[in-house]
Amino acid sequence: MKMEKDYHYIQEVLSPDFVGKRVKIRGWVYRQRNSKKMAFIVLRDGTETLQCTGKKDQLSEELFNMLCEVKYESSVIIEGNIKEDNRAPNGYEMQIENFTIIQMAETFPIQKDQSDSFLLDYRHLWVRSQKLTHSFRVKAKLLQGAREYFDQQGYVEMTPPIITGSSCEGGSTLFELNYFGKKAFLSQSAQLYLETLIFAHQNVYSLTPSFRAEKSRTNRHLAEYWHLEAEAAFLDLNGIIKFEDGLVCAMIHKVAQDEPKALKALGRDPQDLLNIEGPFDRIHYDEAIDIINKKGVEIPWGEDFGTHHERALTEDLKSPVHVTHFPRKIKAFYMKTLDGKYAEANDLLAPEGYGELIGSSQREEDINVIIDNLKRDGSKIADYEWYLDLRRYGSVQHSGFGMGIERMMRWVCNLDHIRDTIAYPRVMNRNTP
Amino acid sequence: MKMEKDYHYIQEVLSPDFVGKRVKIRGWVYRQRNSKKMAFIVLRDGTETLQCTGKKDQLSEELFNMLCEVKYESSVIIEGNIKEDNRAPNGYEMQIENFTIIQMAETFPIQKDQSDSFLLDYRHLWVRSQKLTHSFRVKAKLLQGAREYFDQQGYVEMTPPIITGSSCEGGSTLFELNYFGKKAFLSQSAQLYLETLIFAHQNVYSLTPSFRAEKSRTNRHLAEYWHLEAEAAFLDLNGIIKFEDGLVCAMIHKVAQDEPKALKALGRDPQDLLNIEGPFDRIHYDEAIDIINKKGVEIPWGEDFGTHHERALTEDLKSPVHVTHFPRKIKAFYMKTLDGKYAEANDLLAPEGYGELIGSSQREEDINVIIDNLKRDGSKIADYEWYLDLRRYGSVQHSGFGMGIERMMRWVCNLDHIRDTIAYPRVMNRNTP
Repeated sequence: MKMEKDYHYIQEVLSPDFVGKRVKIRGWVYRQRNSKKMAFIVLRDGTETLQCTGKKDQLSEELFNMLCEVKYESSVIIEGNIKEDNRAPNGYEMQIENFTIIQMAETFPIQKDQSDSFLLDYRHLWVRSQKLTHSFRVKAKLLQGAREYFDQQGYVEMTPPIITGSSCEGGSTLFELNYFGKKAFLSQSAQLYLETLIFAHQNVYSLTPSFRAEKSRTNRHLAEYWHLEAEAAFLDLNGIIKFEDGLVCAMIHKVAQDEPKALKALGRDPQDLLNIEGPFDRIHYDEAIDIINKKGVEIPWGEDFGTHHERALTEDLKSPVHVTHFPRKIKAFYMKTLDGKYAEANDLLAPEGYGELIGSSQREEDINVIIDNLKRDGSKIADYEWYLDLRRYGSVQHSGFGMGIERMMRWVCNLDHIRDTIAYPRVMNRNTP
Repeated sequence: MKMEKDYHYIQEVLSPDFVGKRVKIRGWVYRQRNSKKMAFIVLRDGTETLQCTGKKDQLSEELFNMLCEVKYESSVIIEGNIKEDNRAPNGYEMQIENFTIIQMAETFPIQKDQSDSFLLDYRHLWVRSQKLTHSFRVKAKLLQGAREYFDQQGYVEMTPPIITGSSCEGGSTLFELNYFGKKAFLSQSAQLYLETLIFAHQNVYSLTPSFRAEKSRTNRHLAEYWHLEAEAAFLDLNGIIKFEDGLVCAMIHKVAQDEPKALKALGRDPQDLLNIEGPFDRIHYDEAIDIINKKGVEIPWGEDFGTHHERALTEDLKSPVHVTHFPRKIKAFYMKTLDGKYAEANDLLAPEGYGELIGSSQREEDINVIIDNLKRDGSKIADYEWYLDLRRYGSVQHSGFGMGIERMMRWVCNLDHIRDTIAYPRVMNRNTP
C-alpha cells in the first residue's frame, strides 16, 4: 500500500530506507505531552502510530506552542525527519520540523477509567481506541483467511435472504418485522436457503448478519452477529469435520501471519495460533459427559451444554475440540439420526473455555424422518413444504455448519467481552448509536 | 479444485488428459431423452454439465431401462469413458458404462414456459436453472474482484450494524422492527458508521444487506439488496471518482477472466467487459440536463434523474459514465457544497441504459454547514449528535460511496430483471420462500 502525492503512511516510513529522510504524515493526535524543552506527539493515521518529537530550541516559538497546545484527536499534518530510536515502541520516531493543525478538536470526552456504559454511549469515538482498532483489523483478516480457504476448496459465495416470511427455526428468539403491512422475521440462519443451492453449485457458503432476540446479558451473546455458513453435497459428518479443521486453521494462521502486532497488543501470542494444527481431537458426547462430571461440574446424560460445561471441558486445552454425536432429542429436525439415539452432529469448541465456535451436522436426507422430527417438535409441516422439496427432487447426502464470527474473534483475540469484537454491538438494552 | 476419493468433478474431466479414461461422476439429471437404441443424460454437478450417452447394445437391459426412466433432477452416479465430441456443447461427452440412482426424483414441477409468479413460488427449485446458476457464479466473482481491489488499496473490511435505534436517513422507506419491545429500524446504509471508522483505519469498506421499504414494482428495485460501501479519509471528490473507476474495472475484469462461459451464456461478451477501461467520462449535471433534453426527454434544471433520464443519457454508451455536481438542494445533508449551488457528488451510471451503479460524494467537513442542512431537511439535530462529533474531534476531508451489487449485476450479466441477480428476491409482495 503506497500513498499518492506528497504524503506517506506511517506504516511505510517505519523502515530503515526512510531513516534520515524528511517526510510528511497526517492523521490524529493520539497522545500529547510536553516538558519545558520538548513536545511529544503520538500520531495515529490508521496504518500505525508514530512518536513525533519537537525540540523548543529547533522550532519557532509559535510552532512549539502549537505542539504544546494541540488537543487529543485533533487532525494534523506533521513534517520531519525519521530517526531510529530503540526506546520508541516501534523502533522509529520523527523529529518534527513543521506542524499544521487541520482541525483543532474540542476537549475529547473520553478520559481514562470511564465506565462501560459511558464508552458504549460514545462508541462512535471509542472505536478509535487501540483495542478496538486491533480487534477489527484481526476480524478483517480472519474473514479474508476464511474466504481464501472456501475459494481454494471450490465453494461458491452466495447472498441468502435476511428477511423471511416464514418462521422456520427458533420462534421465540426471532425479531419480528413490519413488511409492507405483513409480519416477517429476521433470519437466524441461512442454512435452509444454502441447502437449496447445493443442487446448483454443490458447495456453497455465505457471510451474513444473523439475529437472535435472546434476552440474555452475557459476555458472549449479541442480538446481531456475523454468521459464516456453508453447505456441501456428497459430504458426511466426517467430511464436514475435516473441512472445519482446515477452515479454522486457515483463518487463525492467516491472522497470525498478517496481523501479529495487533494480536500481541490484544494479548494473544501469534505463535500459539501458528502452533495449532488439525485434525482437532474429537470427543463423543457420552465421553464428554463423563469428563465434565469428573471435573466436578454435574450434568446428566441427555442435556445440552451450558457455558460452564463447555468451560470445564476446554479450559485446559490449547487447541479446539469437536464434541460429536449429541443426543438426537436435543438437536434440530434437519440433523441426521444415528442408531435412533444420536445426531450426526458436532460442535467445535474453542480452547481456554471460550465456548462454541461452530455448530455443524450431516443433514437428514430422508423426507419421512424429517417430517417425523418436525411433528415431534410441534412444527407446522406446511411451513416446510419448500424445504421438503429438496428431499423429493434429487436428495443427496450433505452436511453443513455455521460459525459465529464474533465467538471466533473472542477466542482468537483473547477478549473477555464479545462487544469488543464488533464496532456497534447490539444487545438487549442497546441499539444506538 | 480436486475431489478426493473415487469421484471427479465434471469441470476436471473436461480436458484432453481425461480422453479415453474411465471416471465416476455424480450430480443431478438436468436433461434426459432417449431413442430406441440410445439414451442421453445431461448431468449437472455444480461445476459444469456433461452429456452422457448410453447405447442399448452395450448395456444390460436393466441398466438401459434405468437410463430411459430416470426422472429430471434425480441424483445419480454415472461411470464411463470420456470422449472428445465436437457436437457436444463443451467438446466432450461420456460413454455410459454404469449408472446408479441415488434418489429417484418425483416429477419435477417446473416445466417449460411457466409464469414468473410460479417460478418465484418454486424459487427453491428454480435456483437450479442455468440462468440463475450462471448469475450467482458471476456475483461471487464480482465480490471477489471487489475485495481484492479494496485489499490492494489498503481498505480494511468492517462489519457495521444492520439494526439501528435511530432513524437517520430516509424515514418513509425504513423497515420498522420490534427490538425487545422498542422501535428500531433496518439500515439503509452503513455510511454514517463507516465514517466513524476512518479516524481509526483511514480507509474502510463493508458489504452488508441494506433495506428499503419502497413501494415500487419495477425491474430494478429490491427491498433487500447487498450494499458495498466505502469511506476514505483525506480524499476529495476527484480522488473517490478515480477509486471508483479502478474498483469497477477490477470487478468486471475479474469476472470476464474467471467466468467467461457464464457471461456468454447470459448474453454478455466477456471481451466487451475487458475492453472497458478507466478513467470513465465525467459529465457535469448541467451538461447532462442539456443532453437529456436534446434527446427529447424533458427534464428541468434542478430535478433528480429518473429511470428514463438515465436511459436517455446512457443507452448509446459502451462504458459507465459519471454525472457530477448535482444541485445541492436535491442531495443529502452530509454532502459537501460547492459554490452554494452544487453538491460535490457523483453518480456512476452503467452504459446501455442500466442506470445507477454507484452514488458517491465528498462529505461535508464543517459542522455548521451540516447543522444548517439538517435544519433545512427538518431533521432533529439531537438524533445526529453522535455523527456531528466526527466534525468536533479531528474532522478531515473525506469521501465515500455506495454500490448496489444487484444493480451492478444487472448490467454485467445483461439481465432484464433485477430478481435474477439474487437467490431469494425480496420485493413488495413477496418474502417467501
